[in-house]
Amino acid sequence: MRFLKGHGTENDFVVLPDVDGALELTPSLVQRLCDRRAGLGADGVLRVVRSAHVPEADPDTEWFMDYRNADGSIAEMCGNGVRVYARYLVHAGLAEPGHLRLATRGGTKEVDVAATGDVSVDMGPAVVGEPTDVDGSAATCVDMGNPHAVLHVPSVERLGELKTSRLDLNVEYVEDVSPTAIRMRVHERGVGETRSCGTGACAAVVATALRTGTARGTTYDVEVPGGHLAVTWREDGHVVLAGPAVLVAQGDVWQGELWTD
Amino acid sequence: MRFLKGHGTENDFVVLPDVDGALELTPSLVQRLCDRRAGLGADGVLRVVRSAHVPEADPDTEWFMDYRNADGSIAEMCGNGVRVYARYLVHAGLAEPGHLRLATRGGTKEVDVAATGDVSVDMGPAVVGEPTDVDGSAATCVDMGNPHAVLHVPSVERLGELKTSRLDLNVEYVEDVSPTAIRMRVHERGVGETRSCGTGACAAVVATALRTGTARGTTYDVEVPGGHLAVTWREDGHVVLAGPAVLVAQGDVWQGELWTD
Repeated sequence: MRFLKGHGTENDFVVLPDVDGALELTPSLVQRLCDRRAGLGADGVLRVVRSAHVPEADPDTEWFMDYRNADGSIAEMCGNGVRVYARYLVHAGLAEPGHLRLATRGGTKEVDVAATGDVSVDMGPAVVGEPTDVDGSAATCVDMGNPHAVLHVPSVERLGELKTSRLDLNVEYVEDVSPTAIRMRVHERGVGETRSCGTGACAAVVATALRTGTARGTTYDVEVPGGHLAVTWREDGHVVLAGPAVLVAQGDVWQGELWTD
Repeated sequence: MRFLKGHGTENDFVVLPDVDGALELTPSLVQRLCDRRAGLGADGVLRVVRSAHVPEADPDTEWFMDYRNADGSIAEMCGNGVRVYARYLVHAGLAEPGHLRLATRGGTKEVDVAATGDVSVDMGPAVVGEPTDVDGSAATCVDMGNPHAVLHVPSVERLGELKTSRLDLNVEYVEDVSPTAIRMRVHERGVGETRSCGTGACAAVVATALRTGTARGTTYDVEVPGGHLAVTWREDGHVVLAGPAVLVAQGDVWQGELWTD
């Protein structure tokens, strides 16, 4: 089975080219591929398949992103994942650099692949909710298809270990670096602290722009532990996520050997 | 750059075939290859090189195991690593199954590769020292080239999270399963709890045989979190470590992409 390994700001993926939909991707196989010691290791799997082979995919969009979490469960969307997926299509000569439309379980996504390898994606509209209490502080709630609570803090470094919140939310801790730059750490629900979170970076910029009164259309630099993302909350309410998408290796994985131990 | 990914009881390695010694393996490259998100991810790197290209290697032994820890530092030996290394030589047709001699920085090792893929290695003599105190309990000290303290406990599961000892020792916690089977957890110095430790399994069997009066030459089954190892403390005082050595993938890694983020 052919694979590639890639990441977007250290949110990492196993890419499985399966253009004709021949691969049977079981939860158990996903778990084994993503196992960081007995397998290849990743946060999730991106199966690259033509929409024609996926009943639920929009048939007008050539490519479908079949994204699975490392635990084998099906996920609708992943902001860093869709960027790595698009980078792969261009790398493999399956798409031209520039504008692409990609089908996902979270709807069709508009993506741009730059000649540099950076990839931007329209993550859709941000929905701002009522403030909520997170561990005694008022947090801004932003829904990006998944729920986020954003807390403004003086220093993300001084937070120490991020404790698991009892709330069923992703929680972003945001420090101001400049009027158009923030530093962020994220605690993802069910996972713990991660190196990067695409929807989290979007939510953090929306909350920061609201707090500081920054104009729509301003592009923020978001420093996450795994690198830098550029996030723009557009006039039309959509949030655009941009940044590096890197492919580091390609090869063959011997499926039978994944269950040896 | 060609690579393979493999593991022995989930102690995992990037194997770099470099038979003619052309590769410049810097600490920084090792760190990047072993990075579990921005790279391939592993506990260490095994460079496969002919001894003729390594000044410090025994010239009478064809193959030299150049082992590096994930942090880029040079290590003398690794029991699970030498087993994966030998498995690779046979996989690649560079050696016949059966008996092999491999040069390492810890001396020449005698290895056997079975047709099943299991690999055994003579880990050398165990040196038993004076008992020591580990967190209020008497531990058996066993030197396998590196220092171990072995504690007998009623249940390794009930230990909970293994705390970092202030001692500069690897600590094994051992539970009896049967007269010839033990279950073990290990806290490696400078690392924390790991899925497996080859020298630790050897030390655990030596300490158990001494405690229970079991005859030399008895083969123990050692269950570690990452699988099962077979360990024999021979009449001549040497300890033989055997178990699965698995190769799960091969491919090419794009060196330039390892530094993108």
